[in-house]
Amino acid sequence: MEFLLELLVALTVLFILARLGSMLFSRLGFPGLIGEIIVGVIVANTALAKWIHLDFGSDDSDIYTVVYVFSELGVIFLLFSVGLETKVKDLLGAGKPALLAAVLGVILPFVAGMALVMMANGEMHAAMFMGAAMVATSVGITARIIKDMKLMDTREARIIIGAAVIDDVLGMMVLAMVKGMSEEGVSAVDIAILAIQATAFVLGVILICKYVMPKVYDYFDKCKRKIVSEGKVPWSFNKLIMAVIVCLSMAAFAEFIGLAAIIGAFLAGMLFADHAWEWDLEHKIETLTTFFISFFFLSVGMQVDVNDLMNVSVLIMAVIVILLALVTKFIGCGFGAKLGDKELDKTGVHIIGVGMMPRGEVGIIVASIGLASGVLPSDLYAVVVLMSVATTIIAPPILSKLFRKKYEEEYKILPDDRI
Amino acid sequence: MEFLLELLVALTVLFILARLGSMLFSRLGFPGLIGEIIVGVIVANTALAKWIHLDFGSDDSDIYTVVYVFSELGVIFLLFSVGLETKVKDLLGAGKPALLAAVLGVILPFVAGMALVMMANGEMHAAMFMGAAMVATSVGITARIIKDMKLMDTREARIIIGAAVIDDVLGMMVLAMVKGMSEEGVSAVDIAILAIQATAFVLGVILICKYVMPKVYDYFDKCKRKIVSEGKVPWSFNKLIMAVIVCLSMAAFAEFIGLAAIIGAFLAGMLFADHAWEWDLEHKIETLTTFFISFFFLSVGMQVDVNDLMNVSVLIMAVIVILLALVTKFIGCGFGAKLGDKELDKTGVHIIGVGMMPRGEVGIIVASIGLASGVLPSDLYAVVVLMSVATTIIAPPILSKLFRKKYEEEYKILPDDRI
Repeated sequence: MEFLLELLVALTVLFILARLGSMLFSRLGFPGLIGEIIVGVIVANTALAKWIHLDFGSDDSDIYTVVYVFSELGVIFLLFSVGLETKVKDLLGAGKPALLAAVLGVILPFVAGMALVMMANGEMHAAMFMGAAMVATSVGITARIIKDMKLMDTREARIIIGAAVIDDVLGMMVLAMVKGMSEEGVSAVDIAILAIQATAFVLGVILICKYVMPKVYDYFDKCKRKIVSEGKVPWSFNKLIMAVIVCLSMAAFAEFIGLAAIIGAFLAGMLFADHAWEWDLEHKIETLTTFFISFFFLSVGMQVDVNDLMNVSVLIMAVIVILLALVTKFIGCGFGAKLGDKELDKTGVHIIGVGMMPRGEVGIIVASIGLASGVLPSDLYAVVVLMSVATTIIAPPILSKLFRKKYEEEYKILPDDRI
Repeated sequence: MEFLLELLVALTVLFILARLGSMLFSRLGFPGLIGEIIVGVIVANTALAKWIHLDFGSDDSDIYTVVYVFSELGVIFLLFSVGLETKVKDLLGAGKPALLAAVLGVILPFVAGMALVMMANGEMHAAMFMGAAMVATSVGITARIIKDMKLMDTREARIIIGAAVIDDVLGMMVLAMVKGMSEEGVSAVDIAILAIQATAFVLGVILICKYVMPKVYDYFDKCKRKIVSEGKVPWSFNKLIMAVIVCLSMAAFAEFIGLAAIIGAFLAGMLFADHAWEWDLEHKIETLTTFFISFFFLSVGMQVDVNDLMNVSVLIMAVIVILLALVTKFIGCGFGAKLGDKELDKTGVHIIGVGMMPRGEVGIIVASIGLASGVLPSDLYAVVVLMSVATTIIAPPILSKLFRKKYEEEYKILPDDRI
């Protein structure tokens, strides 16, 4: 079979299977990505992988290269979208309860995850990756529930969204540090340099957002007015391609200085956050993400070793990690929010704690970086995948019950179709 | 350098260069794709290709595989978009002048191109590919001019658009035949089977469009109403992914039965043409095309051998082909339209003849299929690229002059940014 035909067949089969998995789980009321991960596990562990010439792990398979590239681009565009929703003014004006909820909600899971793995197998770097994977809240599912229940204007919703934005930035900085420290022969000086680099990168982007980007937008506006008034032939800027270029080059830069590519993509998204809507970037990037991201969830599943899941000690570890992941976010975020806003009632505190629980895709992305760099063993990788899936399944029904308890309004929950 | 960093650098560099080429040529009033092709020629013939690990022609280069896959997907989505604009009711109701313009405008260039190459080097299969490459009008540029001059409602515009739609379908059938006949050991029976297959594929899709697709849309509408009225959890159909699955599987099917992948993609687009707007498919597929298509134009340029362009006999051939390409469409389409509509005045006939001249990307796609299958020699490939570029540059200024002559209205031409 010639390569083009092989490629088209493989892509078609993978798209169809991912879609079926996603639709089935959406229909059951779970996020679709869980279905895609499970399809990935099935594909990798049956003859199907061979049949579509996806010899996983073989460097010779061009189809494998394509799936790998698509999954990387999917993650990069996904984090770019997350960045597009992270406005600097929300970040800087999130308020004390959101800030405290985010900070405590990052520290507690990180410390708990790290301590657990240190106790279990004493591997410092693996322990740090476990901690980092437990940090990042995936607020998409919570935001969807809040939107569907039309509770966007409540105090709890605003604290959760603000905390999630800060949580994203902190999560990226934790990942940067952990990834940098996991490399061999890293001295204390290297770590200091890395910390400075990561902080400078984030602060630099925040400063650019605040002072440079408004001027860039003004320039484009001026260009546009000039064209209309003078009827001149304009330079044709394609905003999507411009955004893609900025995204890919910042991802490459982040990778180059030893941070993760997704950190660059996330910060690139922040640059465009204020005008994403005006430029219709959100929809366009969402289209690209939709195309590529299934390949990421599929390959997440493909990388899970089924033998690990059959292992009792791994399953016990998974249960402990899941409990820790739920409890640390619940206490960290709830307590932080209460510290910052004394008027929050008990149900409000619970809402914030539960709303910040889902880890979704970001924890898995962190773990897959750890797996790829050989630091996180495959059994702990499987544990993180289970943890992300479990927190994402457990939190939503509790959250909507709590919201209903507090706000006796009309509500309706539609399942999360995509992420 | 690790692969992910290599990949991100290569993609960033290629995007930036393609964009610069496209912007420069748009600014000069030419279609941007010409700039992208020229950038491709430059990249392949300088040290740049090596520098971004794009060792062209080496099967070992993963970056090369990625560029190849992106360019193929770009072409597939491009033809899918063309199909999205090809509505069966326009096809069936185009009227006599459009039908005759299309048919004569296909026969004349095909016969002329084939005869020329037969006389020049006697290679039957190469001659057929040259004929096929001269067939397909790329109506995008003409349509842009018509739109910008606000002349959509004129008789000439309607004939051109109708003829272009029929021309697309005929062009695909010609390509199907030529590609099938170029394979080794093809007997008269095989050719007959191929002709039947190609015709059946096209007619089948037309019948499905007319009788099956309306029912599919009704089903989706019913699902939607059911969800709203019963508040039930729906199956979540992602329409973009559904369209992509149909597009890729029909492309694979076409490739499998010996037609070209783009034929399947084009026919898949036709399936969705009636609801492309309602489902917002046009914009989403355009976003995917925008992302991928630059890689096609870049690789078109990369495959042009600069030595061929330095060869006097190749250049003479190119001049003859360009003249033939212009004259045959002008006479074929103009005469056909006049045959079908006696009331067309002389300027109207000229407008239709000139409006159908640009070959743009489709001719190049046909030629690149010929090159890839080893049937079209690299010098004739370079000739087709020159022909496509030349017809695309020459026609627009003449066309707007003719339109201005006939319709003394306000007009304004903005350069074609993307295709």
